[in-house]
Amino acid sequence: MTIQEIREYLGRFFEFVELDGNADEVISGPAKIETAQKGQVSFIANEKYLKHLASTGASLVIVHRSVCVDEFRSRISFLKVADPYSAFVFLLQKFAKPRIVAARGIAPTAVIGEGVSIGEGVSIGEFAVIGDRCSIGSNAVIGAHTVLLHDVAIGDDTVLFPRVSCYDGTVIGKRVVIHSGSVIGADGFGFAPQSDGSYVKIPQMGTVEIGDDVEIGANATIDRATMGTTVIGRGAKIDNLVQIAHNCRIGENTVIAAQAGISGSVTIGRQCMIGGQAGFAGHLELADRINVAAQAGISKSFLQPGISLRGYPAQPMRDQLKHEAMQRGIGALKEKLDHLDDEMKKLRGEA
Amino acid sequence: MTIQEIREYLGRFFEFVELDGNADEVISGPAKIETAQKGQVSFIANEKYLKHLASTGASLVIVHRSVCVDEFRSRISFLKVADPYSAFVFLLQKFAKPRIVAARGIAPTAVIGEGVSIGEGVSIGEFAVIGDRCSIGSNAVIGAHTVLLHDVAIGDDTVLFPRVSCYDGTVIGKRVVIHSGSVIGADGFGFAPQSDGSYVKIPQMGTVEIGDDVEIGANATIDRATMGTTVIGRGAKIDNLVQIAHNCRIGENTVIAAQAGISGSVTIGRQCMIGGQAGFAGHLELADRINVAAQAGISKSFLQPGISLRGYPAQPMRDQLKHEAMQRGIGALKEKLDHLDDEMKKLRGEA
Amino acid sequence: MTIQEIREYLGRFFEFVELDGNADEVISGPAKIETAQKGQVSFIANEKYLKHLASTGASLVIVHRSVCVDEFRSRISFLKVADPYSAFVFLLQKFAKPRIVAARGIAPTAVIGEGVSIGEGVSIGEFAVIGDRCSIGSNAVIGAHTVLLHDVAIGDDTVLFPRVSCYDGTVIGKRVVIHSGSVIGADGFGFAPQSDGSYVKIPQMGTVEIGDDVEIGANATIDRATMGTTVIGRGAKIDNLVQIAHNCRIGENTVIAAQAGISGSVTIGRQCMIGGQAGFAGHLELADRINVAAQAGISKSFLQPGISLRGYPAQPMRDQLKHEAMQRGIGALKEKLDHLDDEMKKLRGEA
Repeated sequence: MTIQEIREYLGRFFEFVELDGNADEVISGPAKIETAQKGQVSFIANEKYLKHLASTGASLVIVHRSVCVDEFRSRISFLKVADPYSAFVFLLQKFAKPRIVAARGIAPTAVIGEGVSIGEGVSIGEFAVIGDRCSIGSNAVIGAHTVLLHDVAIGDDTVLFPRVSCYDGTVIGKRVVIHSGSVIGADGFGFAPQSDGSYVKIPQMGTVEIGDDVEIGANATIDRATMGTTVIGRGAKIDNLVQIAHNCRIGENTVIAAQAGISGSVTIGRQCMIGGQAGFAGHLELADRINVAAQAGISKSFLQPGISLRGYPAQPMRDQLKHEAMQRGIGALKEKLDHLDDEMKKLRGEA
Repeated sequence: MTIQEIREYLGRFFEFVELDGNADEVISGPAKIETAQKGQVSFIANEKYLKHLASTGASLVIVHRSVCVDEFRSRISFLKVADPYSAFVFLLQKFAKPRIVAARGIAPTAVIGEGVSIGEGVSIGEFAVIGDRCSIGSNAVIGAHTVLLHDVAIGDDTVLFPRVSCYDGTVIGKRVVIHSGSVIGADGFGFAPQSDGSYVKIPQMGTVEIGDDVEIGANATIDRATMGTTVIGRGAKIDNLVQIAHNCRIGENTVIAAQAGISGSVTIGRQCMIGGQAGFAGHLELADRINVAAQAGISKSFLQPGISLRGYPAQPMRDQLKHEAMQRGIGALKEKLDHLDDEMKKLRGEA
Repeated sequence: MTIQEIREYLGRFFEFVELDGNADEVISGPAKIETAQKGQVSFIANEKYLKHLASTGASLVIVHRSVCVDEFRSRISFLKVADPYSAFVFLLQKFAKPRIVAARGIAPTAVIGEGVSIGEGVSIGEFAVIGDRCSIGSNAVIGAHTVLLHDVAIGDDTVLFPRVSCYDGTVIGKRVVIHSGSVIGADGFGFAPQSDGSYVKIPQMGTVEIGDDVEIGANATIDRATMGTTVIGRGAKIDNLVQIAHNCRIGENTVIAAQAGISGSVTIGRQCMIGGQAGFAGHLELADRINVAAQAGISKSFLQPGISLRGYPAQPMRDQLKHEAMQRGIGALKEKLDHLDDEMKKLRGEA
């Protein structure tokens, strides 16, 4: 791919793409600025990294339109854009080799139930099990060993990697990606305590609905609702080993990092960012665009959009940082108190 | 199902079931009080929800025997019982459609080892692998893609969902439910440090025993003992992504919420409730009926039954809440100290 | 196995192995000192356990060479060594029955792609799926239902238990053990935020490399790099449900306990010990031989080798313990302040 071709490709996404360099040079692939070699393209999105221009081997670097590159233009070509990070991401998509999750068509070892509807261009991998009355949208990919119980609906262009489980009734949108080992629609954790100390299982009769453009990492678990639906909103991104309990509603474009755990009946707004290993008590609500720090413990609802939360029990960032500073100040407090005590003793003629 | 039939069904579980309404009306299914429609049954177990009687569309509501329903009896039928929540749970079980985990019989693609004993009425799903000398109790269900290594025993009426692994020697009781992705009997995490910094693996020669009526969520891990047995007591309920290490003993009817982690050789008593993401150091003991708050870090044994624990390191609830209140009071302490300091300065004629 | 044979076996690992007892007695297997019966061997590595000598039924006990056993020699034989714990571990390896993960050879139901190279003595289990151009080293074992996407390399003598996933391009060394349910090489969690609140996926073009002698527990997740390689160093031991994000580098012989989570681009040195449920922010570095306490939250780099870290945000053990002691001292501080206040009032004639 020549630099000129890259420029044209980026022109699909950005109004302004200015070339400063050799349009004909061939670029073989992307690399980090620190390790890039001749023939590779890299990017700088943060001024801190501009220092690497002196030593990088990259033939092409994507930078912000405001960056002055005069010093390096004899050795490096530049493409200038308004958002070099996104530009590089689009370029990665261009260079990424297609990963073969399952061959086109239905593997001869796959088991397809009764009344299954399968769209055009579908790939179903070895030993996949598709339950009765499932529907698989066009161009969807079902990896090897993935199991759909009955009445599961998979949207167009969705990719389930190998070894995913979807329990009965799960509904998955279009262009969804679910990584290996994840379990969608297992029973919510609900048991009614009896007077003898034992528990009676509360039947989990609901389902899970996953919106379009959601991505779910490896070995995550999203439980079905007790009654009704557990909902993952359109565009949400859920990392590995995340737990989402029964009857949760996760808002559109909300991002949840690895190992976070959301208890039952929690509602999280749109465009929130939940840090890794954060935990939520049940039956609470978060407004839109709330940031939750890693390992935070959310014990109540927060209804003001856009705030940041941290700590256990979590509170708004400013309060929590003040709280933490106070705690670090206990030593100074103790010293001041001891000093006052001495003075008091002097005043009273004891010292 | 008519209201009269529901009344008779609940009469199997409760001595007192009083009908106030229309015995012949047909009920199609259950719903939450807020969303119930004509023909549906709901329940109210908490006084706070009584307000919904004014607006609910439910045809039948199960309430506590003490509730006065005069105001609504023209529109709604009532069944009065001593425990409306449990009554509703039993009713959910009645209405729940049977989930087909695997068809009755042995799927043609399943692989059955040598010397396997299989009870009556068993279902074994597609591509299941049953190792040599396993035994499967009557009416047990083994989901598609579930793998039993050799010498595994599965009790009557137990259900393993698709994609469960049981390592060799695992013993599972009756009426157990294990959800997709869980791994029972993998090696305990034991390595002997050597003088060159490397580790020698400690063979994990023990097994896992899971008692009757246990339920285990999705993607949980329960490790085999180094020597002897890791034991999950009868009736225990273990949520998704929980880690139980080698040689643990979990008491009967103890409940462990999602993502909690129990280190090696921990003994937990009966009827404990362990919150989500709680963590336990190794080789410690908890008495019966102890509650552990979510995200708590248990660093030592607690031998007094019935207490509640919270915080890191965890301490009894009262001490911990006092500790947290003290911390929140540092600001006031600082103000008081500054005030005293000013007074002192005045006294000494400095101010 | 006679005691004499055990002595000779241990002589392979230790210079000094002294027998005090009956060389001809036959030992049937190992047991804990508390539960050992006649004919069994146990060990004592910690003085605290010497008290069990009075009651143990063991026929043979391995002890430190310095221990005086005169009192018990009429009833128990002893082998004295410099490191009784490691001696016992080696003995466990001798007594451990081989676990059959998959039968020798390629199961008839396994699906092998094109251009796959398979070494001598390999075992490939039922329904395993080996993608195109994979290579499997000599004597490697691939469990039932394990899925390798294309271009995966598995070293000699490595064991993948049933139901492991390796994404395309994963490279695994020799003598590696990976337990059931783990997912190696799934996509890193990378998305570029767009101005409308949605995200564009950052293609994850890198791979994972796992060094020789690594062990990985059940249901762990190790993500591929965005570009380049996520590296697990030789001899590292990773427990169940651990998350290792894209572009991490884990040093040789580092041990990571269950449910710990390492964010993207973290570098951890050699011989570190990371406690259970510990969490790491992204893009930071830990020096060699650092210990991280369970549940700690590492928010910045620590470059001094050999230190211990604890707390949230984590700090060196001494500072953190001092900090925790200070916090526990707030009550005393408050009392002292109230007392001073009273005195002040007296001085000013108010009381």
